[in-house]
Amino acid sequence: MGEQQRVTAAAVIIGNEILSGRTQDVNLAYLGARLNELGIQLAEARVVADREEAIVAAVNACREAYDYVFTTGGIGPTHDDITSACVAKAFGERLIRHPQAERVLRARYEQMGVEVTPARLRMAETPESATVIENEFGGAPGYKVGNVFVMAGIPRVMQAMFEAARPYLEGGVVLLSRTVGCYVPEGSIARGLGELQDAFADLDIGSYPFSSNAGYGTNLVLRGPEEARLDEALAKLRALIVELGGEPIEGGV
Amino acid sequence: MGEQQRVTAAAVIIGNEILSGRTQDVNLAYLGARLNELGIQLAEARVVADREEAIVAAVNACREAYDYVFTTGGIGPTHDDITSACVAKAFGERLIRHPQAERVLRARYEQMGVEVTPARLRMAETPESATVIENEFGGAPGYKVGNVFVMAGIPRVMQAMFEAARPYLEGGVVLLSRTVGCYVPEGSIARGLGELQDAFADLDIGSYPFSSNAGYGTNLVLRGPEEARLDEALAKLRALIVELGGEPIEGGV
Repeated sequence: MGEQQRVTAAAVIIGNEILSGRTQDVNLAYLGARLNELGIQLAEARVVADREEAIVAAVNACREAYDYVFTTGGIGPTHDDITSACVAKAFGERLIRHPQAERVLRARYEQMGVEVTPARLRMAETPESATVIENEFGGAPGYKVGNVFVMAGIPRVMQAMFEAARPYLEGGVVLLSRTVGCYVPEGSIARGLGELQDAFADLDIGSYPFSSNAGYGTNLVLRGPEEARLDEALAKLRALIVELGGEPIEGGV
Repeated sequence: MGEQQRVTAAAVIIGNEILSGRTQDVNLAYLGARLNELGIQLAEARVVADREEAIVAAVNACREAYDYVFTTGGIGPTHDDITSACVAKAFGERLIRHPQAERVLRARYEQMGVEVTPARLRMAETPESATVIENEFGGAPGYKVGNVFVMAGIPRVMQAMFEAARPYLEGGVVLLSRTVGCYVPEGSIARGLGELQDAFADLDIGSYPFSSNAGYGTNLVLRGPEEARLDEALAKLRALIVELGGEPIEGGV
């Protein structure tokens, strides 16, 4: 697969609550899986605290290194929601109250019968060159600025924002995968697996050990852009498992 | 709380399977919570792919910026387990087969009746200045090199390695917390909360919205080193919630 077809992304996950262990992040796994389907590889993620220097540094490092950046968290109405101000700073732009975002917010609050407070209007603030991305959820919209997509931290809101952002994303080659499991321990299959990886340098072969009541085993994941190459490698992998006295379990354990 | 009492850490989570969404990471939340109990603040986490440049860069950036670094993943026997080689490279050290790690491994495999393959012996490789940290789990040991702790990716193994590493960790001030929930939406409590944060600049006040069948609400978390200050702020926060027509729910919703 040519490097020119490789489209990459980074996630910047913002929030003290993730780092303190109070909240279990689930956005990273969602983004990784969905981006993969679009032919975009999530190449890195950074989890940073609600601190200006940390957010600005992570956004700038990632937007230079990858095709797309997705931030999650820190776009609510309270004092600890500083993502938009930080993204503006990262881009050297002014933070403005975005007219389109304000319209969306006001319409939503009118519908809900909720007062439009100055705190709530903070959620309409974006860097000045931002493109607002309305979502079916209808609340505070996410937005893009340059190659950076700014999204909520609450998973179902983040997911709605991500789906709304899809028209702005151009993927490359989609990586397909094959998974096979076996009750052969990693240490026993390692040598043959290394040889298989050498013979199929165009594929990415991952090895994930597990243990269950039935004993020690390994799940093996082949990833690559071509069905035929994957199936060729899979046949060899199945043979290797059988040769080691195991039984290939399609789809993994 | 003086900056000199602030002890910080970073996590470097290594593995394509986390970034592809195949595996949901749970080590970050564990590390965050346990470090907090020791008076060490997890200040950043990076999730990187099984690629040498990415791992070396993340380890070097984090070991310079924070007091401790914890890596998870990539220390098994297969070709995609490259963490130890990368950590050695990050430190400019040779990768050696560590005699103590080899003893531990051989003893374990003898006990299990498992053949000691060259692949399995790879798990005894460490940077040359590494200190091996044996754990009660008894398998491949984790180790420390400089301020970097290298641990497994499988959660229960990682946890055993982390507990074994505790004697090497010196914490600072332990941050305590108070949590209170209420069915007051974030947008309504934001202004009063911001004023509370200004009045208690020594505390960290986090605001986490939620929605349930009972309506929109907010969980509020106060964090700081002193019980008395937390309780003082908590009293004011409870009064604010009542003033806004809500009912404080101890421990959050």
